[in-house]
Amino acid sequence: MPSTELAGLRREAEALDAADGLAGLRDSFHLPKGKIYLDGNSLGALPKGAEGRLLATLRQEWGENLIASWNTAGWFVKPQVVGDRIGRLIGAQDGEVIALDSTSVNIFKVVCAALRLRPDRRVFVSEASNFPTDIYMLQGIRDLLGDIEIRIATADRPLATLLDGAGVVLLTHVDFRSGAFHDMAAVTAGVQAAGALMIWDLAHSAGALEVDLTGANADFAVGCGYKYLNGGPGAPAFVYCPKRHQPHVRQPLTGWLGHSDPFAFSLDYAPDGGIRAFQCGTPPILSYAALEASLDIWERTSMQAVRAKSVQLTRFFIACVDAYAPHHGLVLASPRDDRVRGSQVSWSHPEGFRIMKALISRGVVGDFRAPDILRFGFTPLYTSFDEVWRAADTLRDIMQTGDWRRFAGERDGPTT
Amino acid sequence: MPSTELAGLRREAEALDAADGLAGLRDSFHLPKGKIYLDGNSLGALPKGAEGRLLATLRQEWGENLIASWNTAGWFVKPQVVGDRIGRLIGAQDGEVIALDSTSVNIFKVVCAALRLRPDRRVFVSEASNFPTDIYMLQGIRDLLGDIEIRIATADRPLATLLDGAGVVLLTHVDFRSGAFHDMAAVTAGVQAAGALMIWDLAHSAGALEVDLTGANADFAVGCGYKYLNGGPGAPAFVYCPKRHQPHVRQPLTGWLGHSDPFAFSLDYAPDGGIRAFQCGTPPILSYAALEASLDIWERTSMQAVRAKSVQLTRFFIACVDAYAPHHGLVLASPRDDRVRGSQVSWSHPEGFRIMKALISRGVVGDFRAPDILRFGFTPLYTSFDEVWRAADTLRDIMQTGDWRRFAGERDGPTT
Repeated sequence: MPSTELAGLRREAEALDAADGLAGLRDSFHLPKGKIYLDGNSLGALPKGAEGRLLATLRQEWGENLIASWNTAGWFVKPQVVGDRIGRLIGAQDGEVIALDSTSVNIFKVVCAALRLRPDRRVFVSEASNFPTDIYMLQGIRDLLGDIEIRIATADRPLATLLDGAGVVLLTHVDFRSGAFHDMAAVTAGVQAAGALMIWDLAHSAGALEVDLTGANADFAVGCGYKYLNGGPGAPAFVYCPKRHQPHVRQPLTGWLGHSDPFAFSLDYAPDGGIRAFQCGTPPILSYAALEASLDIWERTSMQAVRAKSVQLTRFFIACVDAYAPHHGLVLASPRDDRVRGSQVSWSHPEGFRIMKALISRGVVGDFRAPDILRFGFTPLYTSFDEVWRAADTLRDIMQTGDWRRFAGERDGPTT
Repeated sequence: MPSTELAGLRREAEALDAADGLAGLRDSFHLPKGKIYLDGNSLGALPKGAEGRLLATLRQEWGENLIASWNTAGWFVKPQVVGDRIGRLIGAQDGEVIALDSTSVNIFKVVCAALRLRPDRRVFVSEASNFPTDIYMLQGIRDLLGDIEIRIATADRPLATLLDGAGVVLLTHVDFRSGAFHDMAAVTAGVQAAGALMIWDLAHSAGALEVDLTGANADFAVGCGYKYLNGGPGAPAFVYCPKRHQPHVRQPLTGWLGHSDPFAFSLDYAPDGGIRAFQCGTPPILSYAALEASLDIWERTSMQAVRAKSVQLTRFFIACVDAYAPHHGLVLASPRDDRVRGSQVSWSHPEGFRIMKALISRGVVGDFRAPDILRFGFTPLYTSFDEVWRAADTLRDIMQTGDWRRFAGERDGPTT
């Protein structure tokens, strides 16, 4: 009887929690009572320190010091200061990451910058499993510039077969549906050997697993601040550009804060010689405060420790659901191999949407991705093994009782 | 003796304050003690309601409801809802304004969209007195697309002489240095008669004077939320696109939230048929909360009332400084004619930078714009006539005593 097996795993959860070196960080987050939140891969939980930082920005910096805060509170350098703090989580050097705008806007910047470095190779390569905005942005650039070919890798047409003459390759590092991730160093090397530049979208990687952009010799990267980085809804995203490219790179969103001397108010744009060339307009200061509060927590641990717990969490969840999954049509849609699985586990089921509705109604918050993916994100900073066990047990009950049949199948707007 | 004349104006300030129909709104803002803040044209003051809205967003929407808030708290429609509220201040119809990204990024969108509507007229026209980011963005587009001519109007080469074959004209409505503003309807008509499309940058107009985009038949507009709109540092900016253009328009920042059905996760971008086509990435939700608190205040008055007081404030400041300006080399750099002066007054002086430092040291906060402009912004929602008088009297004392000579002349990073 599968549920007996699952019951046995509860003791394992207790042992794992007792040995969890990150357990002390959980109290740094506000976690709503009565919920098991397994959607931190879509929107990270609220760091308790965010409120204090935000109120200080609001009351003192804005309210009292007003315009002077651009200098005295470091508002001008916020994108760079926060960028450097993110950079330390993804294997970048100081001065190679800047936090600003949205992931989509940043894709535009780095793809255009990369194309300019490969002007005779007007071929973009991406893959069908990317988060759609990556491909949409490539299509927008193609429609704007014309004379660009977009090749999309699929299971039948793997990346390696599409690189002939390619100029720019854009890949999501961790697949947002399955959680499978690319070997960053190997793929980058292959792409560069074919003469193209490699751009990584780290939306589901930053804060989820060990990323070494320097070691992988990546050409560019982008990512977002509101998933595993816990920066809050629509937190500033980021751009990575290594120092070796900075002297040569030009990106087309040439707003005044990317100028080498913004306050000279000269008539001709001249880009900053460093990472600030990726800045464009005025940064949304209030949105940085929450992200900074989250980074305060990140600096109390290491990505190695986070990744180690992440692997334990996802492996344990798979073990729990494995106990009954085959009896109820749940098919693992994530890799079993720890070495290529990110910090999420997905299961496919034809009634996935209704099953997720049933889970959420019982306080187990994952999300659904069309056409049939139940997606569960595991955030080592605040997820416990007991929660993993209880989520699996709730799913078991919903499947055994068929309780999901109470829920309608209409989509009402889930999120990334 | 000029200072005697200025003393007489103090009684006029009292009378003007007594008759001020907007005086009751001043208490809706946090204003730092000991300061006279005349820089709301660069960063608006903090609305007292911002803290409550922000804490509700932080604690309840993010902290408690987490990912569900994209639907339940209306995060998805925030750019449109806030856009409509801004639209009512600038003569737009509902569904024609969306609040998002920065002004610079929005310029990129609308200029590219306009060019696509005039594909055979690859000539941009702007003017030298624009805020530089406008021209920088045009240069970035030219460098990206190639084969585009940029013509810059100056005093010697007026706009009307540059329109032959022009496709897109981008003008800042209110000059950021002098505060002089264009006749929006007349300029738009002239530009359109020449076959070009007219884009207005409303950075120093929205919330400062009566703008009627519909009446002027403008083609596009952009603007920012952090100046007269008081939305906080780096508040969401906005795009205006009239309904007549919406079915035909394409902009190149084709992120997933501009897609007609973002959650279908299809591989091909298809733009929303309305104003949402100007959306790109995930909006910075925390930054909207403060802007919404400010819009709550705007909805307690009318732009007519705001403009009427604005004219009184600037006229009164000019009258006060006129009493002694000629004796100290201060030259009015703003129009005397109320009908073409925005909500700021600028004076030029070769030692303007040091004079502004002296003013700020005494709590009178204006700003300096190279090479020699002392700039004072007047925000009718929270500026009193007594403050105007005291600012002028402080400037008088600094000029009469030569106290500004105590301050060094080095720039240390002023702001827009």
